[in-house]
Amino acid sequence: MTAAHGDTGLLAPGWADSAAASATSDHAYLRALLDAEAALTRAQAARGLAPVEAATAVTEAASGAFDVRSLAERARAGGNPVIPLVAELTKAVGDEYGPYVHRGATSQDIMDTATMLVAARTLDLVLADLGRTEQALARLAAEHRDTAMPGRTLTQHAVPTTFGLKAAGWRALALDARDRTTAVRDALPAQLGGAAGTLAAFGAYGASDPTGLPAAYARELGLRAPDLPWHTLRTPVADLAGCLAFTAGALGKLAVDVLTLSRTEIAEVAESSGGGSSAMPHKSNPVRSTLIASAARRAPQLAATLYGSLAAEDERPAGAWHAEWEPLRDLLRLVGGAVRDAVELAEGLRVRPDVMREHLDITHGLIVSERLSAELAPVLGRARAKELLTRLAAEGRPLAEAPELADVDLDPAHYTGSAGALTDRALERR
Amino acid sequence: MTAAHGDTGLLAPGWADSAAASATSDHAYLRALLDAEAALTRAQAARGLAPVEAATAVTEAASGAFDVRSLAERARAGGNPVIPLVAELTKAVGDEYGPYVHRGATSQDIMDTATMLVAARTLDLVLADLGRTEQALARLAAEHRDTAMPGRTLTQHAVPTTFGLKAAGWRALALDARDRTTAVRDALPAQLGGAAGTLAAFGAYGASDPTGLPAAYARELGLRAPDLPWHTLRTPVADLAGCLAFTAGALGKLAVDVLTLSRTEIAEVAESSGGGSSAMPHKSNPVRSTLIASAARRAPQLAATLYGSLAAEDERPAGAWHAEWEPLRDLLRLVGGAVRDAVELAEGLRVRPDVMREHLDITHGLIVSERLSAELAPVLGRARAKELLTRLAAEGRPLAEAPELADVDLDPAHYTGSAGALTDRALERR
Amino acid sequence: MTAAHGDTGLLAPGWADSAAASATSDHAYLRALLDAEAALTRAQAARGLAPVEAATAVTEAASGAFDVRSLAERARAGGNPVIPLVAELTKAVGDEYGPYVHRGATSQDIMDTATMLVAARTLDLVLADLGRTEQALARLAAEHRDTAMPGRTLTQHAVPTTFGLKAAGWRALALDARDRTTAVRDALPAQLGGAAGTLAAFGAYGASDPTGLPAAYARELGLRAPDLPWHTLRTPVADLAGCLAFTAGALGKLAVDVLTLSRTEIAEVAESSGGGSSAMPHKSNPVRSTLIASAARRAPQLAATLYGSLAAEDERPAGAWHAEWEPLRDLLRLVGGAVRDAVELAEGLRVRPDVMREHLDITHGLIVSERLSAELAPVLGRARAKELLTRLAAEGRPLAEAPELADVDLDPAHYTGSAGALTDRALERR
Amino acid sequence: MTAAHGDTGLLAPGWADSAAASATSDHAYLRALLDAEAALTRAQAARGLAPVEAATAVTEAASGAFDVRSLAERARAGGNPVIPLVAELTKAVGDEYGPYVHRGATSQDIMDTATMLVAARTLDLVLADLGRTEQALARLAAEHRDTAMPGRTLTQHAVPTTFGLKAAGWRALALDARDRTTAVRDALPAQLGGAAGTLAAFGAYGASDPTGLPAAYARELGLRAPDLPWHTLRTPVADLAGCLAFTAGALGKLAVDVLTLSRTEIAEVAESSGGGSSAMPHKSNPVRSTLIASAARRAPQLAATLYGSLAAEDERPAGAWHAEWEPLRDLLRLVGGAVRDAVELAEGLRVRPDVMREHLDITHGLIVSERLSAELAPVLGRARAKELLTRLAAEGRPLAEAPELADVDLDPAHYTGSAGALTDRALERR
Repeated sequence: MTAAHGDTGLLAPGWADSAAASATSDHAYLRALLDAEAALTRAQAARGLAPVEAATAVTEAASGAFDVRSLAERARAGGNPVIPLVAELTKAVGDEYGPYVHRGATSQDIMDTATMLVAARTLDLVLADLGRTEQALARLAAEHRDTAMPGRTLTQHAVPTTFGLKAAGWRALALDARDRTTAVRDALPAQLGGAAGTLAAFGAYGASDPTGLPAAYARELGLRAPDLPWHTLRTPVADLAGCLAFTAGALGKLAVDVLTLSRTEIAEVAESSGGGSSAMPHKSNPVRSTLIASAARRAPQLAATLYGSLAAEDERPAGAWHAEWEPLRDLLRLVGGAVRDAVELAEGLRVRPDVMREHLDITHGLIVSERLSAELAPVLGRARAKELLTRLAAEGRPLAEAPELADVDLDPAHYTGSAGALTDRALERR
Repeated sequence: MTAAHGDTGLLAPGWADSAAASATSDHAYLRALLDAEAALTRAQAARGLAPVEAATAVTEAASGAFDVRSLAERARAGGNPVIPLVAELTKAVGDEYGPYVHRGATSQDIMDTATMLVAARTLDLVLADLGRTEQALARLAAEHRDTAMPGRTLTQHAVPTTFGLKAAGWRALALDARDRTTAVRDALPAQLGGAAGTLAAFGAYGASDPTGLPAAYARELGLRAPDLPWHTLRTPVADLAGCLAFTAGALGKLAVDVLTLSRTEIAEVAESSGGGSSAMPHKSNPVRSTLIASAARRAPQLAATLYGSLAAEDERPAGAWHAEWEPLRDLLRLVGGAVRDAVELAEGLRVRPDVMREHLDITHGLIVSERLSAELAPVLGRARAKELLTRLAAEGRPLAEAPELADVDLDPAHYTGSAGALTDRALERR
Repeated sequence: MTAAHGDTGLLAPGWADSAAASATSDHAYLRALLDAEAALTRAQAARGLAPVEAATAVTEAASGAFDVRSLAERARAGGNPVIPLVAELTKAVGDEYGPYVHRGATSQDIMDTATMLVAARTLDLVLADLGRTEQALARLAAEHRDTAMPGRTLTQHAVPTTFGLKAAGWRALALDARDRTTAVRDALPAQLGGAAGTLAAFGAYGASDPTGLPAAYARELGLRAPDLPWHTLRTPVADLAGCLAFTAGALGKLAVDVLTLSRTEIAEVAESSGGGSSAMPHKSNPVRSTLIASAARRAPQLAATLYGSLAAEDERPAGAWHAEWEPLRDLLRLVGGAVRDAVELAEGLRVRPDVMREHLDITHGLIVSERLSAELAPVLGRARAKELLTRLAAEGRPLAEAPELADVDLDPAHYTGSAGALTDRALERR
Repeated sequence: MTAAHGDTGLLAPGWADSAAASATSDHAYLRALLDAEAALTRAQAARGLAPVEAATAVTEAASGAFDVRSLAERARAGGNPVIPLVAELTKAVGDEYGPYVHRGATSQDIMDTATMLVAARTLDLVLADLGRTEQALARLAAEHRDTAMPGRTLTQHAVPTTFGLKAAGWRALALDARDRTTAVRDALPAQLGGAAGTLAAFGAYGASDPTGLPAAYARELGLRAPDLPWHTLRTPVADLAGCLAFTAGALGKLAVDVLTLSRTEIAEVAESSGGGSSAMPHKSNPVRSTLIASAARRAPQLAATLYGSLAAEDERPAGAWHAEWEPLRDLLRLVGGAVRDAVELAEGLRVRPDVMREHLDITHGLIVSERLSAELAPVLGRARAKELLTRLAAEGRPLAEAPELADVDLDPAHYTGSAGALTDRALERR
């Protein structure tokens, strides 16, 4: 039992064993680094800057096995894993075509491109799960369009709302996350600039006009062609930070609501299968929500580190770039794991309309006091109406017993305003 | 000299006395709160829910003077400034139309709407200054399209680049900031939902279908109509966080580059008028860059707080909403101030091509060693080429003296690759 | 109604109108800057480096009125407010002794020292209110030593606890905050180093050994003498960040618990006077907790900016220092405001033992299932015991009706373990 | 090449392959979890609450091998890895003594205790390396006590300083980090409270007074006995956050200074063995500083997440606790890796006094203009002195050529003030 085995998520029930975990593992990054190297040689071959055989040889060698742990250790000397990887890949390709490995590129070209590949692959998973989440939430919203429940503000019952509107709101956030994530995913660019972003080495190796090479390279990888080398123009990373922090927070809203509504005293909803406890057989913990909420607490600060790296000096910064790698992966994993949990949460959520209905009566009618204010004011005058309600509230008696309110509709379920219409409108969004 | 005078930016040379400072002051917020209240009554009048005279009366009263300090103090009891403001405004409107003030709304409707108004007004300032910044940077890029200078990575000379490409990169970030900010600004919505977001009170006050009211309200204010009440669906705030953190960072890149290039030993650029020192008359500090860099250090964490508030429980959260107010204002101010400084910085930047040219020779030709590697490898073989260059580098002799390199073009200014073409392409972007 | 009036906390019900707000206002900083300048001349006079009359003249002039707004505007040119302030103060002192103003110092000496003065004054307020808070919590803990209530984990009832233990825990955090804050407060140093921290100018002005001057200066101000000039050794600022983030979070724990226990469905505690709502007369919002929770959400990110400024290059950094000023003030204010609210919260908290007692029965005895597991296991065997309890939990019947449990003490109030003893022990801490 | 192998730091050249990496690996956490379980049974045995044979059996079984990956996967259901681990350990112990595994404890008792064990072990490594770092810096400071160099503020030469004072400042921060870390390390407590922190289950299992058990448990582990169960009183975690963010920033100051002083144009210092580049044989990158600087950029935000988790509701929170695990580990690793790099950096730093001396002349004497101001003022009057110096500065001529300055000592190396004395004083600190 040594550290040699590597970390597999013992501290991360939120993302361990998820598709996003695999898509962001050290091995997935290594795969992406190798994909980037192979694509680079192929793109050069396609433009006549390298023999086709070199492209084939590099692609083949890149599909082989490399020792990720050893690479990680040797990354220390130069500060990034591409340096030892290039050495190994060159050796694997052999004497004849080895010189075509990494030719003209800088470590950051490969590292950034690999990061974009990993991001693209993970965001595809995220988007699929956001889709499942929003569909499940849409079903909940439709089904509970008219399920009245207490609206709560600053922890207190305010006026009634519906569970349908609540679910429609959760879905709207999931759709906002989907839209932002889709836009960012589709814009993820390849990186190619050479040592200082001028593409000069490609010229030195014979390209008459290297400015077309980045697009050819991007095509090989299914990424967008960059406008400029972006070694220190970190828009793609900042955009990832933004959409991932947003998605974590959007799911976090769902989670904190479920956590509140799951409380033993409230129990208006329950996760399909709560987490248990060995010593307390009755416990059914809202674990999915807990883990999503945990991700939502961490994502903003990880994004902050990435936004902070925008201020990257020179043609490659001494620290800002390196500070991006782990936080970006952490964000991808956390969000990938959170949306996996959100699917389970949304698809399995148990809703208890009867409990919601009961809770509408906890305040003995005061939950519709806003309505009473509005209706009594023209009759009694605003001041007297308020006085009456305040007195009744203080007395704690059911409002229905107050003779002044004998003719007023006090049923909270009748005071959900436009909740239904708003839900319908929200569900029209695709 | 008492605290009663209020804060005017003594600790904030970055934004004090800026247009953004005025646009985000307590008084600007108060103005926006009053605008929101007046628009609400007007929108109701437009839909027959209030007499036109009430709209006129509220609009007129809202244009009057209110004691912002007193409101700030009284905000404490209920936790927001709308509660005492409504009381004061109602009194100012008078008995007849007073009841139409704030009718059907909740404090958050007004607070959120006012915040969007302030944001819209400030972002307009930001966008104008981003425009001036990018234009100045475009001029610098065009003028210095072929001004060679050292490209630097991890603080060390790497290969040559051009100042034109560098300026084009700064501009690309300014344009990215403009595009993101424009999109967010155009989407800023009004807020209207009533106590729990169901619009119920508007029905209680007589509206047969209140769902059209938010759009009418938004029209009065020049804001976008919301899809749903967004009391706890905080997409607009998160989007502001993202575009403001991005803009701060984008300008931060410009700033850290200018700071580096302004160093006494480098001095390739200088701010137009540096900040002085009383005791050291020679000092000319890059103050504009310093203040921008300072803003870029703060913005990510402010944005993190806003992203963190996405996870807002219930129909109004107990803390997450309140935690947004000051950080969002801080972000607006910081960015508004930073882009004011960026205009001055970009428009006044003094560039010293001769110094840049001199620096290309500091490494005695090693700055083109990449080129030599590429050109010598076919002749000497890759290994011997590298060996030779490593030996020459270690000896510290000018490469031009090495007999093996007699026929090679060692002029760093001839090794700027596609910098010119990339600059041209970047300048095509509008 | 113009911006000229300055900000007085309209967006900050958490700290507006508090003693901490006054202690951290622009005017308080200006006062501290002037105190620092006067102390500097006095310290020099005390060591024979300036005439006593100069010290008197500067001290007198420094007690006068200066236009903070104008200083804020003029701070922009050089990037800090000390530069224009020195000019004004020198003028106010007059020709004869004007040259002794600020002599030998650098702007940062004065700015940092003033910041420490402001911090010391504000922390004294914080400490006084932490003291009141812990005393009120101690009273609650003692009074409710044996008040049983549900212990909740992951939102679900787990096993019973006592309100006394809960209050003792809140108090323990308040004491931890007090201890950390006291240590930091007592170590706040004056700053004096001159342009690059070598004290050289004091020598140029005639001091034979300037190394004693900082201590003399610190004595004038009641601050600690610095070991070294700390212009870029920012331990004092980082320590402030740490103790303030801690205090905000410590109070935040109290706040989130009160928010939970105040929920309409739970209602085991209530703030003494909740915030109201104009339209909903029954509403009594836990506003004090809300505002404390809001501060706790913001403090960590403000502290992060300060910790980030530790990495300050050179003898004075271009950005990191400037990025400290507002976040540190924000932290001081937020914490000062939060602890003011904590005093009110703790002193006025209404506790409802009867409601707590009722809630212990919500789960029909399952809240003591842990005890049953322990007691039944030796009798029935572990597996059968668990099976039985799981079955009973699933059936939802009161455990008291199960014949197998006829002889077991099922009273949750009898299963509070060592809560009382732990409370007693915790209350021994002073 | 599958994800099954686990992550070993491919994205983390800053900490991969370090002792801190091993001390914080999944396997190290698993080891600590098992240590905690074994200690718990031993502590109970020591107090007569379990047979000695049970303690032996559990301790032995806990020394065996468990599948960390499988545990990570199964942690998902309940949200923490202790639940599946207890099941496995119980099985491994066997029928007779299995029931004594984890008896009376809650998952958080074990998880928190294991975290403190991991923290203690990692902080010991950190402290050892901080010791080596400060010693190397002390040597540098002593050796270069009188090595004059330019003092720089806001990127510009200000007045001279010494490299000795600079190194003494770096060391002072390292000592501050050591002191803070030592205090926190020595206070790390064991955690033991049972399901809701009342120790009730230990009573149910027969303990007459369980309040002594936590201390016995802590003794078994070499941790401090807790005052109270701290499931939601997170002082120890917040204290770790503070000392680790501080240490990262303290080392970050060293790093950013070395990065600046290593710049090609400055080159006053160099890392002992810079990182290379395959294509640019002359490159010698300051990789150690780069990686330390990268850690310093990330640590504050990780600490912010931990400070944010102080506001943890109930007896165990739904998210705040889970959000601590990875950020705390990340901080431990980052700091452990950074201080490893700091040792290499400090022990191997090459200092170039001759280059420093040359740079003192870059400004042709203006670097001593402060001194001239001070010395000329009494002779020429303050205004004329300043005028003269400003004119000379503008002319760019060497000051030595100005006839007015013929008799003044213009040697920058003679204007280092009390740098030597301050260095001596700083080196007295142990």
